[in-house]
Amino acid sequence: MPSEAMMKAGLQAYVDLINAGDADGVTALFSADATIEDPAGSPIKRGPDIAAWFKDTIAFNTRIHPVAPIRGSHGREAALAFEVEFTPPGGSRMRIHSVDVCTFDDQGRITSLRAFWGPSDMEAVQNEA
Amino acid sequence: MPSEAMMKAGLQAYVDLINAGDADGVTALFSADATIEDPAGSPIKRGPDIAAWFKDTIAFNTRIHPVAPIRGSHGREAALAFEVEFTPPGGSRMRIHSVDVCTFDDQGRITSLRAFWGPSDMEAVQNEA
Repeated sequence: MPSEAMMKAGLQAYVDLINAGDADGVTALFSADATIEDPAGSPIKRGPDIAAWFKDTIAFNTRIHPVAPIRGSHGREAALAFEVEFTPPGGSRMRIHSVDVCTFDDQGRITSLRAFWGPSDMEAVQNEA
Repeated sequence: MPSEAMMKAGLQAYVDLINAGDADGVTALFSADATIEDPAGSPIKRGPDIAAWFKDTIAFNTRIHPVAPIRGSHGREAALAFEVEFTPPGGSRMRIHSVDVCTFDDQGRITSLRAFWGPSDMEAVQNEA
């Protein structure tokens, strides 16, 4: 079982590596058989699609701002509540209010990520920093 | 499929009814076959155990403070990031930092609740309001 400290460090690294623009680094946080369902209710991504997803994430100048301390659990899961801003190709800057829930293997690698946000949680960024 | 508005209203009602001390009201937000896993990684509660759980919740003078807007999804799920304070029998007041993820049926009733918090997310309340 991964420790809470290990899982929370994994989610903090997820935030830090995305904000640092390190697509390979964030992809390396995931196990080889990991799944991403972002948003929850959409098709699941695996393998090469995960690497491509994070390449796009970095290309979109994505910045993650946690809005509360990362939560652990009594099992293999941890949760991160955050706002994320990004600029899709040809579009204007957007903000999504999300909660990501991840499961972890014994080595602290992410084995699944599910992102809870819906259409009503997305908005245009009015004042860019 | 429940609408995002319906799911968010359900989670807001969950907060409001607990804060109002209405154990029957919060129990009625759940479907007859609902499950509660609070915290994630602990045994699942069903049926009469859910009613008893919320009776205790109210008896412990529980107050929920959301720390971010409730998130929806592109499916049947929604998520609430919050702090909760409560006083267990014979104990002092405690605070837990949690994220609850719920699934909903077509009528907007909660069919499952999973609460993400671990031992490191619980603390004593130093200054009571």
